[in-house]
Amino acid sequence: MTSDPRPLAELSREELEAFATEQRTAYDNLVAKGLKLDLTRGKPSADQLELSDGLLHLPKSTTAPDGTDTRNYGGLAGGIEIREIYAELLGLETDQLIAGGNSSLTMMRDTLMYLWLHGGVDSERPWGREETVKFICPVPGYDRHFTLLEWFGIEMVTVPMHADGPDVEAVAALVKDDPAIKGMWLVPTYANPTGDTTSQEIAERLASMPTAAPDFKIFWDNAYALHHLTPAETKTADVVSLANAAGNPHRPLVFASTSKVTYAGAGVGFFGGSKENVAWWLDHLSHGAIGPDKVNHLRHAEFFGSAAGVREHMAKHRDLLAPRFAAVEDALSNELGSLGIATWTKPAGGYFVSLDVLPGTATRVIELAKGAGVALTPAGSAFPGKVDPEDTNIRLAPSFPPLEQVSGAMEVVTVCVKLAAAEKLLA
Amino acid sequence: MTSDPRPLAELSREELEAFATEQRTAYDNLVAKGLKLDLTRGKPSADQLELSDGLLHLPKSTTAPDGTDTRNYGGLAGGIEIREIYAELLGLETDQLIAGGNSSLTMMRDTLMYLWLHGGVDSERPWGREETVKFICPVPGYDRHFTLLEWFGIEMVTVPMHADGPDVEAVAALVKDDPAIKGMWLVPTYANPTGDTTSQEIAERLASMPTAAPDFKIFWDNAYALHHLTPAETKTADVVSLANAAGNPHRPLVFASTSKVTYAGAGVGFFGGSKENVAWWLDHLSHGAIGPDKVNHLRHAEFFGSAAGVREHMAKHRDLLAPRFAAVEDALSNELGSLGIATWTKPAGGYFVSLDVLPGTATRVIELAKGAGVALTPAGSAFPGKVDPEDTNIRLAPSFPPLEQVSGAMEVVTVCVKLAAAEKLLA
Repeated sequence: MTSDPRPLAELSREELEAFATEQRTAYDNLVAKGLKLDLTRGKPSADQLELSDGLLHLPKSTTAPDGTDTRNYGGLAGGIEIREIYAELLGLETDQLIAGGNSSLTMMRDTLMYLWLHGGVDSERPWGREETVKFICPVPGYDRHFTLLEWFGIEMVTVPMHADGPDVEAVAALVKDDPAIKGMWLVPTYANPTGDTTSQEIAERLASMPTAAPDFKIFWDNAYALHHLTPAETKTADVVSLANAAGNPHRPLVFASTSKVTYAGAGVGFFGGSKENVAWWLDHLSHGAIGPDKVNHLRHAEFFGSAAGVREHMAKHRDLLAPRFAAVEDALSNELGSLGIATWTKPAGGYFVSLDVLPGTATRVIELAKGAGVALTPAGSAFPGKVDPEDTNIRLAPSFPPLEQVSGAMEVVTVCVKLAAAEKLLA
Repeated sequence: MTSDPRPLAELSREELEAFATEQRTAYDNLVAKGLKLDLTRGKPSADQLELSDGLLHLPKSTTAPDGTDTRNYGGLAGGIEIREIYAELLGLETDQLIAGGNSSLTMMRDTLMYLWLHGGVDSERPWGREETVKFICPVPGYDRHFTLLEWFGIEMVTVPMHADGPDVEAVAALVKDDPAIKGMWLVPTYANPTGDTTSQEIAERLASMPTAAPDFKIFWDNAYALHHLTPAETKTADVVSLANAAGNPHRPLVFASTSKVTYAGAGVGFFGGSKENVAWWLDHLSHGAIGPDKVNHLRHAEFFGSAAGVREHMAKHRDLLAPRFAAVEDALSNELGSLGIATWTKPAGGYFVSLDVLPGTATRVIELAKGAGVALTPAGSAFPGKVDPEDTNIRLAPSFPPLEQVSGAMEVVTVCVKLAAAEKLLA
């Protein structure tokens, strides 16, 4: 494959037909290879998981430094040692952070459940007793955030996600007048799927903007807080302090986990916020839980040793992930750079590249890729209801396959983007 | 302390006053000892937890026998190996059982949440859209069951718990006509706190009785299924098969865990039932979870090896627990046996002894015990709203303290029961 130096829009119909034929031939050759590659989900690779196999021999003792027998019941807020480490990493006080089970997504679900059944610390009534509850969803965004809201029957209002965070003018205008808008999603650092990081200024605006709902919540899903792809380590805005300073101390609800730090399936999830929010959370939790897996908490605390230990560990992930992201970037810029048929993000962290192809061709690209044995996330996945109004967005997840497979899959992706674009322009 | 051979009711006032003085002296002597003992909660002791310390060196490999990388995301239903072992123990097919996180209580909460927001497989509407939802609660029962219902705003209707299970005539009469009664709690084997086991006949009746609610559920909390205190191992009725045979296949929802088998805080919880109920559960779970801690599942499967391995392991628990229960029984029968002021259960399994003292004196006994440094579960705990209408029931939990402390605490308890009874009869 050689890249064409001219934008497709500038080609004559004859030239475009020749281009299409060339891409069709390239595509048929790829189909003939019988590939079976997968760029669908942001899963760590086996070599990343191996970085944490030291966990298997920990904890050294099941008695925590504070004397707690981690094997027994109790300790609703989680092990103090892992909370101390993660509080430092997330810029919170230890008593502003709870360590839970293996899934921050489940902690988000539980938080919504508490709000739904009982309301928050500043709610007039349970959210489930409101006529309508709406959430603001920056798009493209994380599909599981949206399906979770669907499950509660919460309406979704989209705003664009920009390089410095959600379109804050749009957000502020929406929340100002509509008391049914009770919350918003935000992945503040290296967002899924754009890799964009919310700036200090946008975070401050979100923390301070007037909202018609007195109990408006920012679900601050800091899943990729420490997941840098470059030595320049982006710092997440301290939304809890910003909200506190702005007189909205209970607005941010912070989530994080070690899912993409240690084991994706056997890590530790965290919930943080104001002390009142933490007390509120624990009170509700106490009605249906006795305590989290404190052995796993201690296992993680011993494995990391300190917050610095987590940062050092993340550098090892970076060494494994950066080449995969470079392979994606190389393929996209080499093959599509001059054609004017695609734009994409160049994330400095996180797990995804967001690729925007010619409007109306994303579904076709994914279908073509499937035909050539490359699984991509279904079209529309990054939008509520799985509908991308422009049919333009494709989420690429290069972390899981070995490096050579990423390159192989990207060869397919770029040919499919070109072929679908040519088909579209010729139609 | 010597036991008085005559029932207190037969004593003259003078004899009773002498008895009271004797108990007061005994009590004062116990207070002077400055004890600090605890019979409050059904927690395993440190020596029981040590039985499972082999877990700390497992799993040997994080790749499950079926090839699953347990470290990564996925596998919503849980590790197949631990599901196979526990399905055999619970008399279910493997695809009728889900392995989850460390808490079956949380799985009960989540089940109620699914029912509340979406209804069950046989519901006409979500339970949360009903005007009133009621549950039948056999009493005395498990306090956390009741506080969980309170949290949902579910009304509780009590029925007596008998030696062969809940008062099934009372249950059948209630559910026949009231469609608001959507479910009932039942700890079928070695119930908390009575130790009673529901008979085959009662289970069959519960599984087959007509209910006004089409989606009536039995929350079958089989927490103590394998927790025998004698070599005669009581078998739990196969409620899922019974309900299926009776045409009510979706009525029972089965819960269990390894909390009192391995580590109380770091075990594995289970949910089971009809295949439709299992599919329903997984569908709802999928909106807020990616998969449970499969490393811990495999760790447990390797530790047990087989269902027989679990049974052998439970025999070691029995060796540690049986002497503690014998100490309770000895103290109660030696000190109170002939006085006519108390009755108690003699459980063949589980974690509790249920002590009924002279009506109106339970609160006083617990207060006196506290004064002598012995913590007992608060009066009324085994009843909805924490109100024991007769003020008669006290739950004794002898598992956690070392054996000599159980004896020491029981000396206090029996003196307090006698003193409170004498006070009451003299009042």
